[in-house]
Amino acid sequence: MPAEAALKEEDLQSTMTALGAAARAAAAALALADPEVKIRALMAAARAIRDNAEKIAAANAKDMAAARAKGLTPALLDRLELTPERIEAMAKGVEEVAGLPDPVGRVLAEWDRPNGLKIARVSVPLGVIGIIYESRPNVTADAGALCLKSGNAAILRGGSESFHSSGAILDCLQAGLKEAGLPEAAIQRIPTTDRAAVGILLTMSDSVDVIVPRGGRGLIERIQRESRIPVFSHLDGMVHTYVHTAADPEKAVKIVVNAKMRRTGICGATETLLVDAALAETLLADLLKALSEADCAIRGDEIVRRVMPQAEAATPADWDTEYLAPIIAVKVVSGLDEAIAHINRHGSHHTEAIVTEDAAAAARFMNEVDAGIVMHNASTQFADGGEFGMGAEIGISTGKMHARGPVGAEQLTSYKYKVQGQGQTRP
Amino acid sequence: MPAEAALKEEDLQSTMTALGAAARAAAAALALADPEVKIRALMAAARAIRDNAEKIAAANAKDMAAARAKGLTPALLDRLELTPERIEAMAKGVEEVAGLPDPVGRVLAEWDRPNGLKIARVSVPLGVIGIIYESRPNVTADAGALCLKSGNAAILRGGSESFHSSGAILDCLQAGLKEAGLPEAAIQRIPTTDRAAVGILLTMSDSVDVIVPRGGRGLIERIQRESRIPVFSHLDGMVHTYVHTAADPEKAVKIVVNAKMRRTGICGATETLLVDAALAETLLADLLKALSEADCAIRGDEIVRRVMPQAEAATPADWDTEYLAPIIAVKVVSGLDEAIAHINRHGSHHTEAIVTEDAAAAARFMNEVDAGIVMHNASTQFADGGEFGMGAEIGISTGKMHARGPVGAEQLTSYKYKVQGQGQTRP
Repeated sequence: MPAEAALKEEDLQSTMTALGAAARAAAAALALADPEVKIRALMAAARAIRDNAEKIAAANAKDMAAARAKGLTPALLDRLELTPERIEAMAKGVEEVAGLPDPVGRVLAEWDRPNGLKIARVSVPLGVIGIIYESRPNVTADAGALCLKSGNAAILRGGSESFHSSGAILDCLQAGLKEAGLPEAAIQRIPTTDRAAVGILLTMSDSVDVIVPRGGRGLIERIQRESRIPVFSHLDGMVHTYVHTAADPEKAVKIVVNAKMRRTGICGATETLLVDAALAETLLADLLKALSEADCAIRGDEIVRRVMPQAEAATPADWDTEYLAPIIAVKVVSGLDEAIAHINRHGSHHTEAIVTEDAAAAARFMNEVDAGIVMHNASTQFADGGEFGMGAEIGISTGKMHARGPVGAEQLTSYKYKVQGQGQTRP
Repeated sequence: MPAEAALKEEDLQSTMTALGAAARAAAAALALADPEVKIRALMAAARAIRDNAEKIAAANAKDMAAARAKGLTPALLDRLELTPERIEAMAKGVEEVAGLPDPVGRVLAEWDRPNGLKIARVSVPLGVIGIIYESRPNVTADAGALCLKSGNAAILRGGSESFHSSGAILDCLQAGLKEAGLPEAAIQRIPTTDRAAVGILLTMSDSVDVIVPRGGRGLIERIQRESRIPVFSHLDGMVHTYVHTAADPEKAVKIVVNAKMRRTGICGATETLLVDAALAETLLADLLKALSEADCAIRGDEIVRRVMPQAEAATPADWDTEYLAPIIAVKVVSGLDEAIAHINRHGSHHTEAIVTEDAAAAARFMNEVDAGIVMHNASTQFADGGEFGMGAEIGISTGKMHARGPVGAEQLTSYKYKVQGQGQTRP
């Protein structure tokens, strides 16, 4: 290896180590910060975002120009762009996080023991959160704010495309921290676009407690594979909506079209529609027609193609495909049992919905389907921390460890037991 | 590689795969089991343990004979031995677990959204728990019972020394499952003492959700290093008791002696005593004398050795040593700040205690010390799920992810969100 490359690698390693140590020290201070001080920092950060809207826009223009020169797709350019409205929405989002109940120091449970010991389980921050994301620069503000609110230090690593935009937003967050007298290292970012930095971050188990990746499947897979640190993530949103025999036809059509078509690129978008065989001669046609009229391509099984001959034939791969596009796979099932079995086999434990007026069928579906979110008579597009009233989310987890479903401020905490004695010794 | 070895390896792999698949299927059934049915299975298992006490004792005698022939230490032989009292205690333990509140299906939180959606966070089992332990055969009953109560399937892997004893106990647990109509595969064990089986288990992330290791540091380290599955564990119990200036002298002496000497081999035993400098001329001597009289060896800093010249000098390594023996390291600190800093640097986030009558000092200690359990005016030997009133524990975790502190039935659950709509679509 040439001497220069070795040196650079060493530099990166020491930069990362310093970043980790600073984050750990800031986390200790943040964990003990008064709730009012955290609110002050967040409100000041929101103000700084508004006051520096032009600076942020200028930084974003730089990123956009480079991205256009690199020939990024319109979809990626759209994710990257910060309009005045989006900058204002970012500031508002930070204010909303400020207004959430403080998730630290909540007494989660308390009880007394016969020997007089008083035991309380009290929430504490997790410590240091590493957030690895792609092109959306607004994740900088969302993730930074949520970590701050929950008393955690954040190490951010945005995509190289948004390097200048994210930097300008980070300046505002750090200005807020400074104004409130909190350590600026509470929200840091990796100061290089070198991909090797991510590899190092994933091994820093002494200074990082959780990794939250936000992005495409490739990114998440790499992180799940490489990380020596626990990861809150979801690989897929292989989401189903199941229309049960006892569905209200009007609700079913509205819900299915919304669940699939409102926004096709989000993880809560429905990808497969299951319809009870008893509805094959009735509601199925209306569902297919409504989807078609909404410009959704249909891939169906034999029964579906009997009802709508122009539909493409579904192949086995379709039952496992997250299209993230205006395409839906449609399967006719014999009833509740087959629907649950199909979902537990093909789903990704993200969000699953049933449409029915039969409460018992809904209860069975919601108990037996193994997913972070199960819904009855609602669009799967509601699978979102904001829609859940959690203020904001740093991501959605499909794992069962620690956080499941939308990951908000409360899910970024752990707990400790406080035991109050009066001199007790153990016999 | 000789053909025979290759075949054996293949056999082991397929045995483990089959075990995992059976556990996953049993877990799905168990997750939906009625609380009463689980209680029935546990009570039947306790009865079977009593009814088969002689069989269990005979199996244990086999293990004991083999262990003696292998020249195991008296301490290990003691851990392995099942006396009639210990068999009865095991049966009683299973009954106690049966009597715990059911941890599955609890509504952890619920709220309504402005659009009428009703959201509930409801506890669900984690799935399949792999428990890897050493010589104590009673872990078979404790761990099996806790997993069953919490709706999880268990894959047990006991030490080879306790192979026959564990097998006899497992028979009783499976008899209980059978009597209640639950799948016997809900509690299985790895049917071989081949060490390679553990290596395979740690990679079975499709069929195992959590690994809980119980045993010495070597075992835990190997598992933390190799596992591709989340681990609930603690490597050390590097536990401190801090005697603050405002300590009640009598309480302090009683607590310190109990915290160190009640049982020196458990993870909640105090290993380092910190004493405020203001007490160097007063209480320190009483503490050292009481420890000495209880046959505890003392390794002290300079001030300690001025008070008790016969004490051995502590080396820097002593501040990081978990003796698990009648030895204590004693350090004089300048006050609360130094005590907290020392503990956060040298502690293992397990259990830490302060002795003081000053409520403000206690509150600061309990907030600022980073440990799963923090105590005020109580012996650190209370760090135990049973003493916490959690019925039993499968282990103690020093990590912040998911379970922290004693891991009981409640900590073996995750949650799902149930969203109840009336036809809502997302705007």
